[in-house]
Amino acid sequence: MRIADRAQLHEALVTDRRDIHRHPEVRWTEFRTTSIVASRLLALGYAVHLGRDATTGAGAVSRPGKEALRRHVARAVDQGASPEILDQTEDYTGVVGELDCGREGPTLAYRFDIDALPGREADGPQHLPAREGFRSVNEGCVHACGHDGHTAIGLGLAQQLVENRAGLSGRIRLIFQPSEEGGGGARGIVDRGWLDEVDRFFAIHLALAHEGRPMGSGDLGAGSVDFLDSRRFDVCYTGRAAHPCGDPHNGRNALVAACGACINVHAIPPHGEGLLRVNVGRLSAGVSRNTIAPDARFELEVRGESARIADYGQRRVLRIVEGVAAAHEVECEITSAGNTPSGRSDGAGIAIVKEAARQVAWFRTVHDHAQVGGSDDATEMMNRVQSRGGKAAYIGVGADLAGGLHAADFDFDERAMAATVELLLVIAGKP
Amino acid sequence: MRIADRAQLHEALVTDRRDIHRHPEVRWTEFRTTSIVASRLLALGYAVHLGRDATTGAGAVSRPGKEALRRHVARAVDQGASPEILDQTEDYTGVVGELDCGREGPTLAYRFDIDALPGREADGPQHLPAREGFRSVNEGCVHACGHDGHTAIGLGLAQQLVENRAGLSGRIRLIFQPSEEGGGGARGIVDRGWLDEVDRFFAIHLALAHEGRPMGSGDLGAGSVDFLDSRRFDVCYTGRAAHPCGDPHNGRNALVAACGACINVHAIPPHGEGLLRVNVGRLSAGVSRNTIAPDARFELEVRGESARIADYGQRRVLRIVEGVAAAHEVECEITSAGNTPSGRSDGAGIAIVKEAARQVAWFRTVHDHAQVGGSDDATEMMNRVQSRGGKAAYIGVGADLAGGLHAADFDFDERAMAATVELLLVIAGKP
Amino acid sequence: MRIADRAQLHEALVTDRRDIHRHPEVRWTEFRTTSIVASRLLALGYAVHLGRDATTGAGAVSRPGKEALRRHVARAVDQGASPEILDQTEDYTGVVGELDCGREGPTLAYRFDIDALPGREADGPQHLPAREGFRSVNEGCVHACGHDGHTAIGLGLAQQLVENRAGLSGRIRLIFQPSEEGGGGARGIVDRGWLDEVDRFFAIHLALAHEGRPMGSGDLGAGSVDFLDSRRFDVCYTGRAAHPCGDPHNGRNALVAACGACINVHAIPPHGEGLLRVNVGRLSAGVSRNTIAPDARFELEVRGESARIADYGQRRVLRIVEGVAAAHEVECEITSAGNTPSGRSDGAGIAIVKEAARQVAWFRTVHDHAQVGGSDDATEMMNRVQSRGGKAAYIGVGADLAGGLHAADFDFDERAMAATVELLLVIAGKP
Amino acid sequence: MRIADRAQLHEALVTDRRDIHRHPEVRWTEFRTTSIVASRLLALGYAVHLGRDATTGAGAVSRPGKEALRRHVARAVDQGASPEILDQTEDYTGVVGELDCGREGPTLAYRFDIDALPGREADGPQHLPAREGFRSVNEGCVHACGHDGHTAIGLGLAQQLVENRAGLSGRIRLIFQPSEEGGGGARGIVDRGWLDEVDRFFAIHLALAHEGRPMGSGDLGAGSVDFLDSRRFDVCYTGRAAHPCGDPHNGRNALVAACGACINVHAIPPHGEGLLRVNVGRLSAGVSRNTIAPDARFELEVRGESARIADYGQRRVLRIVEGVAAAHEVECEITSAGNTPSGRSDGAGIAIVKEAARQVAWFRTVHDHAQVGGSDDATEMMNRVQSRGGKAAYIGVGADLAGGLHAADFDFDERAMAATVELLLVIAGKP
Repeated sequence: MRIADRAQLHEALVTDRRDIHRHPEVRWTEFRTTSIVASRLLALGYAVHLGRDATTGAGAVSRPGKEALRRHVARAVDQGASPEILDQTEDYTGVVGELDCGREGPTLAYRFDIDALPGREADGPQHLPAREGFRSVNEGCVHACGHDGHTAIGLGLAQQLVENRAGLSGRIRLIFQPSEEGGGGARGIVDRGWLDEVDRFFAIHLALAHEGRPMGSGDLGAGSVDFLDSRRFDVCYTGRAAHPCGDPHNGRNALVAACGACINVHAIPPHGEGLLRVNVGRLSAGVSRNTIAPDARFELEVRGESARIADYGQRRVLRIVEGVAAAHEVECEITSAGNTPSGRSDGAGIAIVKEAARQVAWFRTVHDHAQVGGSDDATEMMNRVQSRGGKAAYIGVGADLAGGLHAADFDFDERAMAATVELLLVIAGKP
Repeated sequence: MRIADRAQLHEALVTDRRDIHRHPEVRWTEFRTTSIVASRLLALGYAVHLGRDATTGAGAVSRPGKEALRRHVARAVDQGASPEILDQTEDYTGVVGELDCGREGPTLAYRFDIDALPGREADGPQHLPAREGFRSVNEGCVHACGHDGHTAIGLGLAQQLVENRAGLSGRIRLIFQPSEEGGGGARGIVDRGWLDEVDRFFAIHLALAHEGRPMGSGDLGAGSVDFLDSRRFDVCYTGRAAHPCGDPHNGRNALVAACGACINVHAIPPHGEGLLRVNVGRLSAGVSRNTIAPDARFELEVRGESARIADYGQRRVLRIVEGVAAAHEVECEITSAGNTPSGRSDGAGIAIVKEAARQVAWFRTVHDHAQVGGSDDATEMMNRVQSRGGKAAYIGVGADLAGGLHAADFDFDERAMAATVELLLVIAGKP
Repeated sequence: MRIADRAQLHEALVTDRRDIHRHPEVRWTEFRTTSIVASRLLALGYAVHLGRDATTGAGAVSRPGKEALRRHVARAVDQGASPEILDQTEDYTGVVGELDCGREGPTLAYRFDIDALPGREADGPQHLPAREGFRSVNEGCVHACGHDGHTAIGLGLAQQLVENRAGLSGRIRLIFQPSEEGGGGARGIVDRGWLDEVDRFFAIHLALAHEGRPMGSGDLGAGSVDFLDSRRFDVCYTGRAAHPCGDPHNGRNALVAACGACINVHAIPPHGEGLLRVNVGRLSAGVSRNTIAPDARFELEVRGESARIADYGQRRVLRIVEGVAAAHEVECEITSAGNTPSGRSDGAGIAIVKEAARQVAWFRTVHDHAQVGGSDDATEMMNRVQSRGGKAAYIGVGADLAGGLHAADFDFDERAMAATVELLLVIAGKP
Repeated sequence: MRIADRAQLHEALVTDRRDIHRHPEVRWTEFRTTSIVASRLLALGYAVHLGRDATTGAGAVSRPGKEALRRHVARAVDQGASPEILDQTEDYTGVVGELDCGREGPTLAYRFDIDALPGREADGPQHLPAREGFRSVNEGCVHACGHDGHTAIGLGLAQQLVENRAGLSGRIRLIFQPSEEGGGGARGIVDRGWLDEVDRFFAIHLALAHEGRPMGSGDLGAGSVDFLDSRRFDVCYTGRAAHPCGDPHNGRNALVAACGACINVHAIPPHGEGLLRVNVGRLSAGVSRNTIAPDARFELEVRGESARIADYGQRRVLRIVEGVAAAHEVECEITSAGNTPSGRSDGAGIAIVKEAARQVAWFRTVHDHAQVGGSDDATEMMNRVQSRGGKAAYIGVGADLAGGLHAADFDFDERAMAATVELLLVIAGKP
């Protein structure tokens, strides 16, 4: 396994990453990214499975309605997507590309997540994407979690695998997963069977932590721990509108109720056995300044280091949400917005990564475990692979950062991408 | 002064009111209503001043941007507005129509407000507009404050005045004011000078209260008290986005801060000297469930029975807003969204109404004062008229109600409209 | 009716008032005050009914336990009370003194409340009681509601009535009521029958308001309005203690729950038909800094301008209290701490006061109605008298103030006391 | 080293522990416990240093005033303490006993904390101390953190050391530390020099955790991790009293402000690098139900896995406290109530314990590290010993529990006490 021209690889990765960064697409709207990935894989000779062929759509949440999807397809075409490719998606995003190496051997799968986050990207001169002209052009949408890098790495790897095909055996599956950020994108891919016959599975993530501190450039976590079990809920409070001066007693103030709930949700007691995190990330309430707010909606998540802790958090959070609604006499409707299970990298998977990392000079410090300290539905894939006897690891790739994960000024050391391609290539070369 | 056919008048009023009710338009977007009023007045022979001729735009707040206004003009035309008329508005709404009665005499002005409220209209079968098919077709917009009735009354009066012109003298100005609901619509009309030479001024409002209870059909308040001095503010909190699991300490949670502020704003001590009302009517915060919310915006109002009480409320509310922002280390920007002064009906104005009411059989109980218990920028007009020696009263017309003011199921006894037209006609006939 | 020496009367009133002010006693512990009043009335020849003879104890709330009462009796004796008198009280406070004027005539009753408030008195040099050496010596207890003045007025009147006995007829009852401040002191006196045969009844209060502004020296409200219907509740939350670091998930935080409840109680929507007031006046929670608080107690009141408004406030407040408890999974126990009904001065009672006021030079401005804007269980007495055909008025005596009612620096113009004695004496002289 | 009669030892430990459990004494009031320990050690021939000889009092916080101390001394004497011994304490609690083994050798020190917690003990039949008659007789005070067991272990060890003196060398110091629970008791003992020449130091604690779960009977943590850096603060809010109905606008509600602060303190974002805990454990506010609360006091603590995390927590908590005070226009005074540094068991210390544990059959599972997950100012002692080249470990002794630490029904398997005495005896026997 060798990379012919490292400088060229780095160039190509940077170009791809910045193009993707500039055109971020949130969950279930990654039409341009899907088109780019698919056309590139097709050109390289991969068998390509698109959209509804990649995913059954099982477990999908927060997917926009038909109308909104149409608008996103149009936007993607405007931004260079191929209408022919998008026609095959049935409006689902994501790509599974498969390379048959031509010799018998095990099936190896890699997962790259491709979606961006809602939010506003920083625009100050100290923010590289702004300075260098690849800041998001899709307002309210930003690659602040490194998935632009992951996608570029997947594309770079696709190319290198083809160039090194002679030394490979078995089948290699590149999974470009949509909707990792709260959209439940993994479930439908698992449901379609793409993980069923996989012997070895690896997911990657830039910029994880080790012992509570971010891992920098040159650090590697061969596997990862601290996948949080995540429960997501949408809450709708329905009160009653009324004039706030003349008729306030006939109102039921859903805004004040929601505020009470949101603060108290953040104030639930932590759990003594491990990490518990709650977040109300969005809230909107009311119709008019001079009307008692008749409605409120908020989106929250509860995550725990174990199912037991997540159960605890879920119970307490939902009690708060229901109790405060009753307190303010507003109606309360709670809807699940999906769950992500916990998961773990197995020893065999970690061993494969550690051995491979020894061959990649960039990685100076290799830990057994990076800390995710969050959730990733790659666990759905890992769990499936492990349950059928396969090996799996979730690789944490250290990278110096400007701005933390999900921050408006998130950015990472782009050199880590080429090193990651090399690492995954070396892994592919192991029998 | 006489109404030729009372039944026909009632019919016409109901037809107009229901048509307007079905097509509600919020502040500064009343293009269809403006078009209807203008074309009707033109047909009756009034001198008509439209849009920018009616208002200088002074004091306008919450007026949508150019793009949104264009969309509303297009929507209005779709719903039957005349493009020719709208071309003359310079995108401002409102109409002032003037009837020269042909004989020397004083100038009399009536104010009718024409805007609707943001909000969702009830759709159950017990809600008459839903049952009878004139429920709002403009989603998120509803005539829940009776301005549909006010507009219809204004149109009915316009017709009756022309029919009774022989008995009238001086000039009669019909002011169809846009943007009464928090948009500052009166200021620009006053600023254009339409109240400067007015000797007598009357505004009307359906469904006010007397001694704390709603006035029903047949009740009248010849003048009104309890106009609240209103101060409106928009607040923007800017925090910092961060991953809620891995990086929460680098976040500044604007959502939690805003919730803290909104509850505490509602919990400020009342004022011992009179009515104080605060309301946060709208709130939105955050970008994504799994990101610490980097921003929040909320709209609030403070109203007091006197400037002194409103001053007190404003001070306490803004301290809460600023202090809670500091507590959560988020930046806080407070913008004024306009003020409405207090005001009063004068004795001379009230006397005119009381005398006229004696001639209208419908009004069985006539009080000196109805209670507004809220704000109306008709006070800007009254204050101007009174300051130049004119007489002014704000007439409260009782009407049996289904659902209180600003409630989703607000509706009123439509028979009160014809009686009001008659009352205003009688007033016009007094020398 | 005449006052022999006005200067001397003023002197005596000031001396009494300051002595009582210096020894404030909260509800049901007014043993020293009871002793002073009783011995003074006995010396003047009144028939005196003490403690359990004055009250049945019905409706008493917040009365201390046996042990605490014993300590208060001992304290009172230390401060000059007569052990012999206190022996007759059965540990109940309050005095009813009766003067038989020796001629047939109606029964007249006056009510003077004698209890102080919990709280700390101001001690700065601008506070007259501090400067002049009559600041409270009973720590945590203060005459901040003028009852020291009321008691002194009652004593002064007792003396003047005896001196003017020749001109009086019927019976005159002086009711020195304990526990007006939330202790339900009136109920037991009514229950004992002291109001049953009363033809005319008057209560007084210094320092009320008129049209939202405090009445100053020389002002009088012949009767009073705005008695609020008051509902009082004690709340006990029971959670579960736990170590806040190692075991927080096993805790149920009663402190955080109580904080949530108390804020939200203060944020309930007001009532459009009139005054609504809520107050959580005391709260205590928790056992130790490093333990999750297992318990919380708070005392609240809801008052409304009408029973209907008070009902509304009670419902919303109790829903908040229960709902927030459920939200935090703490147990909630709500106990009534008494109610005070609304009430009104009747026209006949007011007329008597107005006529009398004309003879007292001090009163330059006499209104029909002062505003209580609060509660006073004198309403229990008024309601009883009026229900049996008697006349009743609650007289508001204006007085220039330093510091508002219940404030730590409350103080009043002492000259108002002599004028009040004169007014009540004149009333007694009317047939 | 051998224990002559294990059954007898167990008996004696249970008797001592239950006696101490029945008479719990909170920080700085452990007069009875001090007396018992001192007289026992004296009888055994230890050199005994009492009260002010044991501690300089440096760092003491929350120590009661003179008057209260007197009351506690009297109470202790009532409960069997020796007045002669207490006369020597200068009203400081704690004992340092020293055994000179008669042969040259290193200095070994053990720490036993003796104070109880504020709080109410469970009284149901399932609570052993209640059932067996050794429930706390000191109302509002409870041994809910195992210090009763620690003290009994210290007394049992004192006896065993004397019995085994022949096999020992050097000096052995038994430190019975007062005021571990938030009173800063360790500082003054360190300050007095008792740790200066110590070569080996061991503290013990019953009932710690391992990997997030409580360690049961038979488990041992040879050393401990997760000592939290603790910062303690007392907050006093000063508002302004006012009548809640007539004069609310002149009040500054310290109760509502404190509630706002306490909830928001519990809702600060956690720290991504490790454990952060905040707790407001006590709150009291207000003077009277019908007065706007003029004051509030609350006690809080912030703890972090590192100084950096504790710094973060302290900053955010104090900003909340100050910002919310400003929001409600109340004055805010924040006082430090002491800090406890983090600390660690060293490898050499741990090795000693592990080796010794092999000789004690009771301990079936020996971990390197138990988790404190809280704070203990034994760290002050460990830090001093380690800084001068000594070895130190904080031993976690597993014990089956009924009720968690600080819970009202906390109780532990008493058999763990004898095993602990044996372990410490074996350690003492190592050269």
